[in-house]
Amino acid sequence: MGRWEPNGRGRLAEAALKLYAEQGFERTTVTEIAEAAGLTERTFFRHFADKREVLFYGTEMALDMLTRTIAEAPASASPMDAVGAALESFGAFFQEDPERVRRRDAIVSASTELRERELVKLDAFASAMVGALRERGTPEPAASLAAEAGIAAFKVAYARWVAAEPGKTGRTDEQELPRLVRKTLTELQEILADRASV
Amino acid sequence: MGRWEPNGRGRLAEAALKLYAEQGFERTTVTEIAEAAGLTERTFFRHFADKREVLFYGTEMALDMLTRTIAEAPASASPMDAVGAALESFGAFFQEDPERVRRRDAIVSASTELRERELVKLDAFASAMVGALRERGTPEPAASLAAEAGIAAFKVAYARWVAAEPGKTGRTDEQELPRLVRKTLTELQEILADRASV
Repeated sequence: MGRWEPNGRGRLAEAALKLYAEQGFERTTVTEIAEAAGLTERTFFRHFADKREVLFYGTEMALDMLTRTIAEAPASASPMDAVGAALESFGAFFQEDPERVRRRDAIVSASTELRERELVKLDAFASAMVGALRERGTPEPAASLAAEAGIAAFKVAYARWVAAEPGKTGRTDEQELPRLVRKTLTELQEILADRASV
Repeated sequence: MGRWEPNGRGRLAEAALKLYAEQGFERTTVTEIAEAAGLTERTFFRHFADKREVLFYGTEMALDMLTRTIAEAPASASPMDAVGAALESFGAFFQEDPERVRRRDAIVSASTELRERELVKLDAFASAMVGALRERGTPEPAASLAAEAGIAAFKVAYARWVAAEPGKTGRTDEQELPRLVRKTLTELQEILADRASV
């Protein structure tokens, strides 16, 4: 990042989000994004590999947060506790700017290409958590199962949270994403326990 | 499918699998696949949308099998029982030709593009199961959680099964995919039950 443009990355991301929402992701060009942000195309490509990546630029930070939270969980924490703590931190991160997350989500949901990229990122989150669990000495298949189950619950919690209308009557703290993640993990636990054919 | 080429689809798939294994997925062209199968490029595109789809041509049948098994599960079956039964049938389907599945898996694992397509297909399987569960009257979030947890367990079971060396000493029936799916669901249940912070 060049010093002469203190928040180029943020400006580009904001301009892109606005254009994607207004005219659609497919129809928006990098030239237009750069122009709207008052920057050059070259600067765009210094910050983002492509037009899709603008919508996923928190990925590195998220991966770091997930693995760090798992690494720092007390030795007594079970694999699922460590994964739960990581996903609650992740939820808190989304919670910081819910309006932005909802705007971004509407754009991603409208495009097959972007939904695919989202699946790839979620898979990368699962892999990173598997790695962090193994580092703690969690054996297989427990590490993979805890990470995959965590992502499964997170997907469901996130979808519920995004769908909840902000400011709606009856909306409570319960709908805050970190709490919703924890609640959803408990629901998942109950659903799995309800098996006749074991 | 034209009547004048009784198994064009199968011949194309077999030729593609062989070429992908020998020279890599990226380097193989549709022209080469068609030639190796003794068919035309036009015939290829009548059977498959693109070069990737050859590796996923069981998808429609799989979706049908998953939704049908869930629809036909007894009314007393819990959502997780219905999903478990569906994924065991799915496993049995892979089990029919393990060598072919392993060859295919080696090709998919070696390519980012193909791994991405695989994630998209798994997501489609989850969505189909959610739909089938809702048809049975399973409410949300139970439907989504059961389907996502099922896919999470299936991914892990499948990876273990693919990694198990065929014919290896000590290899038992236990490694058959349908049983492994059931066992992995039980392990997932145990891992989720092991949470301190509920």
